[in-house]
Amino acid sequence: MRIQKSKVAIIGSGLVGSSTAFSLITQGVCDEVLMVDLNHEKALGEVRDLKNSIKYLDRNVKVTAGEYQDCGDADIVVITAGAPPKPGQTRLDTLDISAKIAKSIVDPIMASGFDGIFLVVSNPVDMLAYLVYKLSGLPKNQVIGSGTSIDSARLQNFLADLVDVDPRSVYGYALGEHGDSLMVPWSTVTIAGKSFKDVITDNPELVGDIDLDDLVLKTTREGWEIFNRKGTTYYGIASAAVGIIKAILFNENSIIPVSTLLEGEYGEQDLFAGVPAILNRTGVADILEIHMTPSEQEKFRASAVVIRENTEKIKKYAE
Amino acid sequence: MRIQKSKVAIIGSGLVGSSTAFSLITQGVCDEVLMVDLNHEKALGEVRDLKNSIKYLDRNVKVTAGEYQDCGDADIVVITAGAPPKPGQTRLDTLDISAKIAKSIVDPIMASGFDGIFLVVSNPVDMLAYLVYKLSGLPKNQVIGSGTSIDSARLQNFLADLVDVDPRSVYGYALGEHGDSLMVPWSTVTIAGKSFKDVITDNPELVGDIDLDDLVLKTTREGWEIFNRKGTTYYGIASAAVGIIKAILFNENSIIPVSTLLEGEYGEQDLFAGVPAILNRTGVADILEIHMTPSEQEKFRASAVVIRENTEKIKKYAE
Amino acid sequence: MRIQKSKVAIIGSGLVGSSTAFSLITQGVCDEVLMVDLNHEKALGEVRDLKNSIKYLDRNVKVTAGEYQDCGDADIVVITAGAPPKPGQTRLDTLDISAKIAKSIVDPIMASGFDGIFLVVSNPVDMLAYLVYKLSGLPKNQVIGSGTSIDSARLQNFLADLVDVDPRSVYGYALGEHGDSLMVPWSTVTIAGKSFKDVITDNPELVGDIDLDDLVLKTTREGWEIFNRKGTTYYGIASAAVGIIKAILFNENSIIPVSTLLEGEYGEQDLFAGVPAILNRTGVADILEIHMTPSEQEKFRASAVVIRENTEKIKKYAE
Amino acid sequence: MRIQKSKVAIIGSGLVGSSTAFSLITQGVCDEVLMVDLNHEKALGEVRDLKNSIKYLDRNVKVTAGEYQDCGDADIVVITAGAPPKPGQTRLDTLDISAKIAKSIVDPIMASGFDGIFLVVSNPVDMLAYLVYKLSGLPKNQVIGSGTSIDSARLQNFLADLVDVDPRSVYGYALGEHGDSLMVPWSTVTIAGKSFKDVITDNPELVGDIDLDDLVLKTTREGWEIFNRKGTTYYGIASAAVGIIKAILFNENSIIPVSTLLEGEYGEQDLFAGVPAILNRTGVADILEIHMTPSEQEKFRASAVVIRENTEKIKKYAE
Repeated sequence: MRIQKSKVAIIGSGLVGSSTAFSLITQGVCDEVLMVDLNHEKALGEVRDLKNSIKYLDRNVKVTAGEYQDCGDADIVVITAGAPPKPGQTRLDTLDISAKIAKSIVDPIMASGFDGIFLVVSNPVDMLAYLVYKLSGLPKNQVIGSGTSIDSARLQNFLADLVDVDPRSVYGYALGEHGDSLMVPWSTVTIAGKSFKDVITDNPELVGDIDLDDLVLKTTREGWEIFNRKGTTYYGIASAAVGIIKAILFNENSIIPVSTLLEGEYGEQDLFAGVPAILNRTGVADILEIHMTPSEQEKFRASAVVIRENTEKIKKYAE
Repeated sequence: MRIQKSKVAIIGSGLVGSSTAFSLITQGVCDEVLMVDLNHEKALGEVRDLKNSIKYLDRNVKVTAGEYQDCGDADIVVITAGAPPKPGQTRLDTLDISAKIAKSIVDPIMASGFDGIFLVVSNPVDMLAYLVYKLSGLPKNQVIGSGTSIDSARLQNFLADLVDVDPRSVYGYALGEHGDSLMVPWSTVTIAGKSFKDVITDNPELVGDIDLDDLVLKTTREGWEIFNRKGTTYYGIASAAVGIIKAILFNENSIIPVSTLLEGEYGEQDLFAGVPAILNRTGVADILEIHMTPSEQEKFRASAVVIRENTEKIKKYAE
Repeated sequence: MRIQKSKVAIIGSGLVGSSTAFSLITQGVCDEVLMVDLNHEKALGEVRDLKNSIKYLDRNVKVTAGEYQDCGDADIVVITAGAPPKPGQTRLDTLDISAKIAKSIVDPIMASGFDGIFLVVSNPVDMLAYLVYKLSGLPKNQVIGSGTSIDSARLQNFLADLVDVDPRSVYGYALGEHGDSLMVPWSTVTIAGKSFKDVITDNPELVGDIDLDDLVLKTTREGWEIFNRKGTTYYGIASAAVGIIKAILFNENSIIPVSTLLEGEYGEQDLFAGVPAILNRTGVADILEIHMTPSEQEKFRASAVVIRENTEKIKKYAE
Repeated sequence: MRIQKSKVAIIGSGLVGSSTAFSLITQGVCDEVLMVDLNHEKALGEVRDLKNSIKYLDRNVKVTAGEYQDCGDADIVVITAGAPPKPGQTRLDTLDISAKIAKSIVDPIMASGFDGIFLVVSNPVDMLAYLVYKLSGLPKNQVIGSGTSIDSARLQNFLADLVDVDPRSVYGYALGEHGDSLMVPWSTVTIAGKSFKDVITDNPELVGDIDLDDLVLKTTREGWEIFNRKGTTYYGIASAAVGIIKAILFNENSIIPVSTLLEGEYGEQDLFAGVPAILNRTGVADILEIHMTPSEQEKFRASAVVIRENTEKIKKYAE
């Protein structure tokens, strides 16, 4: 018999992990969602709560709680467990503890025979995705960080609000680090195919409202704005994760900015950074190299420097 | 111009309210979700987090934060605000404080010109739905409690697991109070049209596993089982709420057990209790009166007694 | 790499086949739809027309035209090619020619290495499904006829209209032959768990409108009613086919009446007939044996006789 | 009571009209689909066939057959009735007869009190949309032609295939006439935000394959390529129509190229032509003016000339 079940395992049953599970079952993205948490009872609580949703949904997705060894036949393992930064900390401050957690997850999952795709959501995501790539020994296409997928969504919302259009009609990337050093290649931002520069030209009343540097800063800060109001953030990142999962499981070749290994693309080597990638069932099928201005290239390079420095700090965990 | 926007307002931005909002936007159920919370900044935090989802979803649902007066043009107002019971408390222990909260919500919303449908999710839901009905002065079809929609989902999951079928192929209701006194009319339970009694007859290996009273108890206790593992419960109830909202907004005439005003049906008067109802854009279009055995009728009556006694205690808030 | 693509092949690019393809891509059920037709240019025309839909849909499904040998890696092969009856003919009149067509399809597909699930839609479906089962040598769970799935939908629509509820809240099966001899086990019909008998009792105004034998006749005749008005029929059957495909590909364990091999169930042997079946990624995981009255059993047996007699006539093609 | 039903009326129950209805119910876009055809029995046949789908779908959409006077409370009226061109004819050859048909439809619908949005799909669509605008007396935002929405989908498919990405990641418009004079503003074509020019630069192996004029010609000819293989074309255009309907009914502000009245935009006056438009519940909320090169502007102007000349020929029907 040929038909496999499609199975997504979620490591960590905090609000990011369980919101990802909820969105997967609500959208009916896969056959089975497996939740794994060091606190198995917590995972079980989430599973029992989620399970009660099925009667009112369009697809019967099975939800189960299990252990790392149950990941062997998963298509995708989403890593959400980690050490979220506290107020005043940046995502980078949690580097060491997060690296140790990542190692404690990847080793047993690889031992279970896993040969699917890792989607790393935990922060600092670019460094952890690199570490997972090294620890797992999987081909580069099979390890993906959620990267700037969420920052790009935030940026596109700001732009969509400015001109009152559907954010899904906007193409505008935040690239580089999922963190303070991210950059926006403004020369490539378009609204339904119209360059953002032309949009501004045609809407002079907007000029006063638009400060590109400020929009970048708002994009970078949006996570904290939410954090300050609700104490944490999870719906946006869970939605980005499910967006990536759909592109992979549905084999769509659609293009989403994610953190992936650069080997010459964008002038960088041996580094995970947020760039637009073509996603299908092989994971990252290809990287889309958009053309940047020299000043944009400089900003991307600066962001890569931040990622590289911090990646160096945790390379020891991959040895 | 004829086309209205379809708008769902959610009162309370706790995890039940925000999970309901997340499911509404993830499933693309309406044009706009309005979140209202006494803590406006909290509502705004949820809205900004939810908004970041849209780029990765199939439909552009607007999410906004507002005040009671913004509910005037809502199709449905979902009340999730309340005083959730603490461990050791039953849902009834929170009666007085919840009634006061409900009044503080309904009065300004009615003042805003609201003429849609109230969906009461806050507990104790049967009594509060009655109170909202009285306070609002709306026709009975326009006030609905989530009632035993969630308990029925839980029961159906247990039955589906027993025989390994899709829970959506099971029809089995928990009726009466959404609380310890709920009852299951076993004589009417069917699996894809096959009576549950026949299912047991045909699967003698199940007989040892099945104790009907125990299944009722498990159904009643499932909320607490989840509570004990994750500290609260919200995905299941949010999904039931969205199931009810879809039946209404999509004008489906589909049948879901909800808490609605009984005026003779099931032998009861002037009482909100969980019974199967036909839902469409008018709210509760009709009540489905399933035939029960005398012993089942007795249990329903006993549950109604519990609801009535507690409803009496809060009638004063409706004066 | 673990993730396979999910692929549905459709044999025959007439209106049933292409409507099935359209529904599959519109609902986003699989990664790839392959269309095969003796008239390859016709299949290519459908594919190019269907492909233009993707930009406006929620999922990027690939649509391709190919040959039988391209079915080797399909999950499901849907056989819609056949010799549809002309006015005045019954579905049985086309038996011989349809059997030859089926053989010309199954042989090369099996030669391609196919080990998925055959869904036979071509008529007379019960006999052809039996033939495909024999010709393919596949295990019985991997060969399914659409059977009375469409007749059941029609019956349920009639019942839903009578009491003005969502047809999805009705459980009522047409069983046996997908043809004039089909029968309805009225004692098991329920509306949201309420027995149809009780529904009639409670709605005396309906009694004049309801003649059970007439409802069976209407169910049997509905295909012709449509045929007489539009010259053919395809949306309903395409939707039933996609309903079956979803239950399989999504591994749902949901229960749909389909034509499957009886080996003792319902008192029959070595026969494909329409009965409620539990469907998941293995195909027919199990048969649900609903309890019928003696008179209903008699009608089912009579329908089985019709199927058996006609099945005998084409057994020669399986040798 | 506040909640209206959302209702789409489809005029013409040929394959374009009925495929549009099938897609509306399969996607669950509205509460009710009304089919109107001069041949009422044909409409009834389609309705009865479509209705049998509901049991296997995610939403209970009502499907009915009716008359022009039943359109009074529709949100959207889709006009698909017309005189499709025969091989050898262009869409313009059918101008006179199509204009008369349009008038015979619009007059009684306006008499029914309709105040929703007309979506004209019948060809020649730009001229007929203009005529419907004039005949109806509705504000310009309430009359929309499907225009180059389908040509743009075709173009985007060709581009997506060239570089093997999801067509939904491509922004490339065909603009002007839905006909032989359509033009493509190549300078604005982007793939996930990357200009098409840069895509070609980066993929020198593509250069041999790409001839921009040839791609425009293929786009223009694709309808005929399909026509020549299957005798007509309907899935693509039905999907584009439903895409437009979703943007409107879901109030999405999303941007789709449609035929709309130009009053100065793109340098044209008093003309319906295909341009990118922001669609929401008011219909065309705004036009997106993308910047073209002088040579592109010239081509747009040439296409506008063709539209204007032919529009002149049918203005008499609007008097």
